[in-house]
Amino acid sequence: MTQRVLVTGAGGFIGRPAVAELVRRGFEVHAVSRSEPPQPAAHEVTWHAVDLLDAAARGRLVAGVRASHLLHLAWYAEPGAFWNARENAAWVAASIGLVDEFARAGGARAALAGTCAEYDWEAPQPLSEDAPLSPSTYYGTCKDATRRVVEGLAERSGVSLAWGRIFFLYGPREDERRLVASVARALAAGERAQTSAGTQRRDFLHVDDVAAAFAAILASSVEGPVNVASGESVTVRSIAERLADAADRRNLLDVGPLPDRAGDPAEICADVARLRDEVRFTPAWSLADGLADAARWWADQPATR
Amino acid sequence: MTQRVLVTGAGGFIGRPAVAELVRRGFEVHAVSRSEPPQPAAHEVTWHAVDLLDAAARGRLVAGVRASHLLHLAWYAEPGAFWNARENAAWVAASIGLVDEFARAGGARAALAGTCAEYDWEAPQPLSEDAPLSPSTYYGTCKDATRRVVEGLAERSGVSLAWGRIFFLYGPREDERRLVASVARALAAGERAQTSAGTQRRDFLHVDDVAAAFAAILASSVEGPVNVASGESVTVRSIAERLADAADRRNLLDVGPLPDRAGDPAEICADVARLRDEVRFTPAWSLADGLADAARWWADQPATR
Repeated sequence: MTQRVLVTGAGGFIGRPAVAELVRRGFEVHAVSRSEPPQPAAHEVTWHAVDLLDAAARGRLVAGVRASHLLHLAWYAEPGAFWNARENAAWVAASIGLVDEFARAGGARAALAGTCAEYDWEAPQPLSEDAPLSPSTYYGTCKDATRRVVEGLAERSGVSLAWGRIFFLYGPREDERRLVASVARALAAGERAQTSAGTQRRDFLHVDDVAAAFAAILASSVEGPVNVASGESVTVRSIAERLADAADRRNLLDVGPLPDRAGDPAEICADVARLRDEVRFTPAWSLADGLADAARWWADQPATR
Repeated sequence: MTQRVLVTGAGGFIGRPAVAELVRRGFEVHAVSRSEPPQPAAHEVTWHAVDLLDAAARGRLVAGVRASHLLHLAWYAEPGAFWNARENAAWVAASIGLVDEFARAGGARAALAGTCAEYDWEAPQPLSEDAPLSPSTYYGTCKDATRRVVEGLAERSGVSLAWGRIFFLYGPREDERRLVASVARALAAGERAQTSAGTQRRDFLHVDDVAAAFAAILASSVEGPVNVASGESVTVRSIAERLADAADRRNLLDVGPLPDRAGDPAEICADVARLRDEVRFTPAWSLADGLADAARWWADQPATR
């Protein structure tokens, strides 16, 4: 029997490669985005333009599609602003409603996007899924609250649910206000790229691997939180340097002038044992190859400024 | 300027005396209940029959009333079932939506009903508002998640918000499937009243005092969690015995035959320093007088079985 998956945030950074991966895995994909589908839209995919914050429209969509599977990636994601925006609250309500409606429509298996921002960032690294939770941002608070509610809801409504905690990511089509994209774009355009000292260590994964990991999680029977990450942390400085090397523009890289973000923790790194041993997923991209891929993508874009 | 308050759950156990208390305090009261207002309806109160789980109807109500104050008491409250029902999830979403819409409609001050079930019941007693949180029921999990989200939402949208954590309560019109009411009703009807051994200690407050405490909290500027309780715990057995004494039916009381609920903690008692010293509220009913009041109310009811 064909498995039908409803994918939210399908036009987004993770959503686009996730849709492609789910098609490749043989799912019948129903993709939701607020507006038009990205072009070119794969003909195997059924697109729905629905605002998930509109409860009535969301309810009609879910009842109409009657999906067996749900991949919920949509959330408020305005770069910078999302960390502490009030919009996070509406996405808690929408996400709970979505899982409730999915269960009532006969849904069986769901994977939702969580975040490393749920963890206490001061806890010993690397962070396994049972590390202490203590969000220092409203985004983290709202994702954490969503998980607490939807895990119990799923348990009470016959849905098997996994919660993928995303760490840091990069890749083609990233919003150019985000770290890796801003540096890669500037270098590709022949502009100077300024960064902070960049001594903080982060766990970065190529967006295609993040998307493939979610598809693997959804297709598995693993329940509860699963870190979606590489399992290795590198300094932000070394990320910028690898991008400069890939673009052969080391001379345009200016490390140091930008301020560090106040309270930024020294290291955020995932323990990926669950993803590797239970989901049986390993990333396809090495960090060096992945960053080169991102640099190449930006080099191929028409200059935008 | 008259202050206009929107009261949810206004036809409920706490809602009815809360509406009366808010009228007494001079608020212009807009009361919401799912169905018809309770009779007789005070002519000072404007009643709205709205299902708060219907997001569109809820949004229209809040935008139309444009209240300066919000007292949110409504929740899923089916006796027994509410502790672990999936319906709790929908009330998280509805409560977040309500606060969001209240803020957008220009609301300034809100008080919401929380619960002692948010606390880790194994923590040292009495429980102050900064005691560790670790709900052992889905009801507690959902109230706790709601608080985390709406506190941040209020902070970001110019609403001053208090969160009243209700402990145990009793009084006239209590659902007869609940502890005090079931014993009081049986004794009033001349039936045998069976209880468990009742050695567990609980902090009980008369529903009129719970309602008056919420009105006092709403009228104050106190923010964050506030315990709504008496500050004293008594054994459940002694509650039953006082009810029997008040009804002069000690011979009908049969303590012991019913099983204790598995995992029921030995004591749940509030530290009420915030309620007393910051809100400046003290209960009007002593436990003995309050239980006598409940016993009297049941004695005045026509026999129902």
